[in-house]
Amino acid sequence: MRLATLRTPDSTVAVRVDDTTAVEIGGFADVGSLLADPAWKNISARAAGAEHPLADIDDDQWAPVVPWPSKIICVGLNYKNHILEMGRELPEFPTLFAKYPEALIGPFDPIVLPAYAVEALDWEAELAIIIGSPARRLEESEAAAAIAGYSVINDVTMRDYQYRTPEWFQGKTFENSSPFGPWLVTPDEYMLGTELSTVVDGEKMQSTTTDDLVFGPAALVSYISKIVTLNPGDVIASGTPGGVGHARKPPRYLSDGSTLTTAIEGIGTITSRIVVEG
Amino acid sequence: MRLATLRTPDSTVAVRVDDTTAVEIGGFADVGSLLADPAWKNISARAAGAEHPLADIDDDQWAPVVPWPSKIICVGLNYKNHILEMGRELPEFPTLFAKYPEALIGPFDPIVLPAYAVEALDWEAELAIIIGSPARRLEESEAAAAIAGYSVINDVTMRDYQYRTPEWFQGKTFENSSPFGPWLVTPDEYMLGTELSTVVDGEKMQSTTTDDLVFGPAALVSYISKIVTLNPGDVIASGTPGGVGHARKPPRYLSDGSTLTTAIEGIGTITSRIVVEG
Repeated sequence: MRLATLRTPDSTVAVRVDDTTAVEIGGFADVGSLLADPAWKNISARAAGAEHPLADIDDDQWAPVVPWPSKIICVGLNYKNHILEMGRELPEFPTLFAKYPEALIGPFDPIVLPAYAVEALDWEAELAIIIGSPARRLEESEAAAAIAGYSVINDVTMRDYQYRTPEWFQGKTFENSSPFGPWLVTPDEYMLGTELSTVVDGEKMQSTTTDDLVFGPAALVSYISKIVTLNPGDVIASGTPGGVGHARKPPRYLSDGSTLTTAIEGIGTITSRIVVEG
Repeated sequence: MRLATLRTPDSTVAVRVDDTTAVEIGGFADVGSLLADPAWKNISARAAGAEHPLADIDDDQWAPVVPWPSKIICVGLNYKNHILEMGRELPEFPTLFAKYPEALIGPFDPIVLPAYAVEALDWEAELAIIIGSPARRLEESEAAAAIAGYSVINDVTMRDYQYRTPEWFQGKTFENSSPFGPWLVTPDEYMLGTELSTVVDGEKMQSTTTDDLVFGPAALVSYISKIVTLNPGDVIASGTPGGVGHARKPPRYLSDGSTLTTAIEGIGTITSRIVVEG
């Protein structure tokens, strides 16, 4: 099952995305409020609200799949091949940092940023893990049941801000920087191991399979849940593989007019154009 | 003017704290929802709801002054004397990281933690800056007007988790770890320059004046507001001075039964007992 959030003239609405139509799930403004209902699976499966042919939905109607998660926790240094090719040892613990929901944009929205934010603008394709039930101090064996599904996020990063100080956070939470969507795919319909990729202006920059994670989805949910409760709709951005622009020689960055395509085979594709204000 | 959030049998209520009484501010469940009303100053000044003699309010009735801020942004390396005594240069940019509101507890609540969280439990007394109006891309000259007031927070830190990975976040956002309160003091009644202190089991561990910040309140609001919008009720924990336990030789940590007193002269005092579960 696929779930998404669509913008309406006045608000947003949660939908189930079937083969050719999006079906409104009555009473839920977005996938976040839907997941907060413990019966979300049955409600979603049975929903029979207004139908919208997928072909008729404009790009700008797709909202971030969860527009206002209470937490977006990002993971660094989590793809084995990239760590090993850098000559580093695999980490014992996941590296975690935060992003605020003001950073999120829809899966086809432009990434509109002020000039001071695009000096060293880089891509980070990631598998997003979306929480479906409260997760507090779960063991890894219990944690998979707390995952509602998976989506695609690009943790677009201001490398200059990221490295201004010892903490990466300020380069990771810029308003309107992180495309997220187009939908959530439930775990029964997605198995890790497909290609995660970034394409910039037609050139493939990142390509790895999602089963190369050092800390997989259940391990991440378990680890974080022993620190702080994860709520339905919360998001874990599970890290990016090699191929980012900053590590290239010479470095490659995004700029005004760049087109950024982020995809996970079996989940979906999101596309963003960079627009520098003014 | 002083504002606080008191727990009631069923919920919480925002109050104005006068000399000897707390006066309920009708219609607002906490200081966060109060600050979201652009007329919060007049509403608070004129409130004439039920009165509670301060002497009759139990310690466990005081909630975190803002229980659910949309953001708690913490600042590292921000006291000049401590940086200079360590032989470092003053930083050009503020070091920022995030804390989630599940970390917040009331100003006299016990800090109840699992055994795995108290291996290297440390104190960080901080001046909390609370936002009173939306702050987006403000210059420093405009930023002071967006500050609702000041309070006291202890950014209690799990040093082992903080230093497990390159990012400090996981040692900074443990559930039930950060006492915050007892009230907000508006800027007309508090001028930076008073003593900020931590006392552990009767021994003074940190003592500095709050005018020793590298980046002061308006500079922090301005800097952050150019990255992400700050909302009413959001909190900036502005950093801690020297004297933390981890930097002592030998290191000193908090443990089951320790009493942690954090104070800012002219604002207030908060006291927390450490309780290890089980």
